Amino acid sequence: MSNYYTEELHGPHETFELGNYALENGQTFPDAKLTYKTHGTLNAAKDNVILFPHMWSGTPMAMEAFIGEGRPLDPSKYFIILPGQLANGFSSSPNNTPSPLNGGSFPQLSYGDDVRAQHQLLTEKFGIRELQLVLGWSMGAGQTYEWAVRYRDMVKRAMPIAGTAKTTDHNSLFVRSIEMALKSDPAWDGGYYAKSEDVHVGIRRMAQLWSVMGLCQAFYSAEVWRDVGFSSLDDFMVRFWEAYFLQMDPNCLLWQAMKWRNGDVSKHAGGDLRAALSLIKAKTLVVSFSDDMFFPPHDCLTEQKMIANSSYREVKSLWAHFTMFCMNDTDREQIDTCISDLLNDKL
Amino acid sequence: MSNYYTEELHGPHETFELGNYALENGQTFPDAKLTYKTHGTLNAAKDNVILFPHMWSGTPMAMEAFIGEGRPLDPSKYFIILPGQLANGFSSSPNNTPSPLNGGSFPQLSYGDDVRAQHQLLTEKFGIRELQLVLGWSMGAGQTYEWAVRYRDMVKRAMPIAGTAKTTDHNSLFVRSIEMALKSDPAWDGGYYAKSEDVHVGIRRMAQLWSVMGLCQAFYSAEVWRDVGFSSLDDFMVRFWEAYFLQMDPNCLLWQAMKWRNGDVSKHAGGDLRAALSLIKAKTLVVSFSDDMFFPPHDCLTEQKMIANSSYREVKSLWAHFTMFCMNDTDREQIDTCISDLLNDKL
Repeated sequence: MSNYYTEELHGPHETFELGNYALENGQTFPDAKLTYKTHGTLNAAKDNVILFPHMWSGTPMAMEAFIGEGRPLDPSKYFIILPGQLANGFSSSPNNTPSPLNGGSFPQLSYGDDVRAQHQLLTEKFGIRELQLVLGWSMGAGQTYEWAVRYRDMVKRAMPIAGTAKTTDHNSLFVRSIEMALKSDPAWDGGYYAKSEDVHVGIRRMAQLWSVMGLCQAFYSAEVWRDVGFSSLDDFMVRFWEAYFLQMDPNCLLWQAMKWRNGDVSKHAGGDLRAALSLIKAKTLVVSFSDDMFFPPHDCLTEQKMIANSSYREVKSLWAHFTMFCMNDTDREQIDTCISDLLNDKL
Repeated sequence: MSNYYTEELHGPHETFELGNYALENGQTFPDAKLTYKTHGTLNAAKDNVILFPHMWSGTPMAMEAFIGEGRPLDPSKYFIILPGQLANGFSSSPNNTPSPLNGGSFPQLSYGDDVRAQHQLLTEKFGIRELQLVLGWSMGAGQTYEWAVRYRDMVKRAMPIAGTAKTTDHNSLFVRSIEMALKSDPAWDGGYYAKSEDVHVGIRRMAQLWSVMGLCQAFYSAEVWRDVGFSSLDDFMVRFWEAYFLQMDPNCLLWQAMKWRNGDVSKHAGGDLRAALSLIKAKTLVVSFSDDMFFPPHDCLTEQKMIANSSYREVKSLWAHFTMFCMNDTDREQIDTCISDLLNDKL
């Protein structure tokens, strides 16, 4: 389908066999696989574990940029697990699943499906019973909230970054628009295209929508794209936005998007978001990005106020939702400080 | 093409014949027509004139909601001209122009084409040499700026509302996305469709994008749509956004969008926006809407600071760019106060 989802490009992955996996939508997924990476060593007490799921369109490699000796996520101290979300192209996904669940027949997923699979990996494979920290950005934040609510006795600290526990209506309208853009390409063919490259027009249309909402007005007014080597707005549009997404598989993007759109921990409390978030036992640091148009600070703050043992921080950057890309040192330092302060109980 | 652009729905229009009209793109438009409405009576001194161009997708009728006895735009006092912009479906437009300039062959337009045509109407038809006020919302603001710079000796007061003198890069990315959505429908066929209804899928895709950027996150969080009679988010999506645009002609929307995207008064000063805006002689009140995602307050304020004899006001409303629809009394009162204070020199 696509040459993008290879270990050559994304580094080595481990695979955990989920067997016949019962999805929350009621379907059974045969031979389901959860792929992941780890850094560091699990200590004898098994109490040095950090879990760091990734965002929409990403793979575990995307989060490796935050791991390093001397940094808050220090592999000489912590055992850091980077799980690949289902439909990310490596774990069970529309592009690597045999008929009849291939392509457009891939089942609908939920954060609960991801987090239950990750829980199986941690408990069955490693015997882990406690997590020092679960953190994640964007859809990684969605998984973080799902962890903190569902397995609240396991999670000591949680740090959802630029994401929400329940996808807001506005955000769901955006996600639906990117789904529509991908599906608008006749080559998408209900998800049964032969090669992902055939759907490049749909991906380009989707990239255009990301260019509008993924960054912010002030980013473009200040022409911040010049700082990272682009020569014009069109150059940035094509070589940043289109190039980034054109490598990827349209169905993987779609099935992740549907999962994002339906993200909602309130189902753990009969639809009552406040009640669901009040279940969280972890010390929680909710982090927002100042100019994020998907997860504006106000939306993140609203949820933080429903969490008992929680704090809130806002990272300032014109990179908006993409502050997590750490395109400059200031962004990385601000995020590292949040992680460090939470891990060291300095909130 | 569409039954939408009729006097039954939009009230009676006058027509001003522009003859063989020279467009700024170099093309000649044969038998070009500018349609318009008026309210009130031109006085003998011809010094009671207000010009109020309309926004993208609109017709002069849309601005009539601000005209009324006892209101700031009082037809018993002022002669109020509501010009229809070119490509609005009534003035020369892709849907009413004969071959060879019909449909997809309709020429590209600019605010300069609109404003020069309106100037011809005012001077040749009415002998008007002075305007008490030019005001407009969104693309109407674009035309207002074009008037205030180009015919600066005629315009005594200017009130651009929720719009810019130069379309920002971020805004142009959005406009390009709606153009792409319309064109994504195979039925659009390069602009040569037989019936506008055939392109309904493209219009629905475009409506989805408007739902994201036309309002704002806080609007949806507060479910403000309930206040105006919708029962769910999907209900609002279909019966507000889709229903609004499905009546319209896709090419009219497209050609207006291209004009919007290329809006730029800086061409009057060799590309120097500050120099162009410093040419304005009118007393100018720049009005922004607090939660507007197309024309955020900061962008409007940046331009206002470049205008010598100017003030700035921000209208607070969760209706974002659509505050101008005056879906509640507070919005209408705030806008009326801006108009009134500018007309009465109470800034």
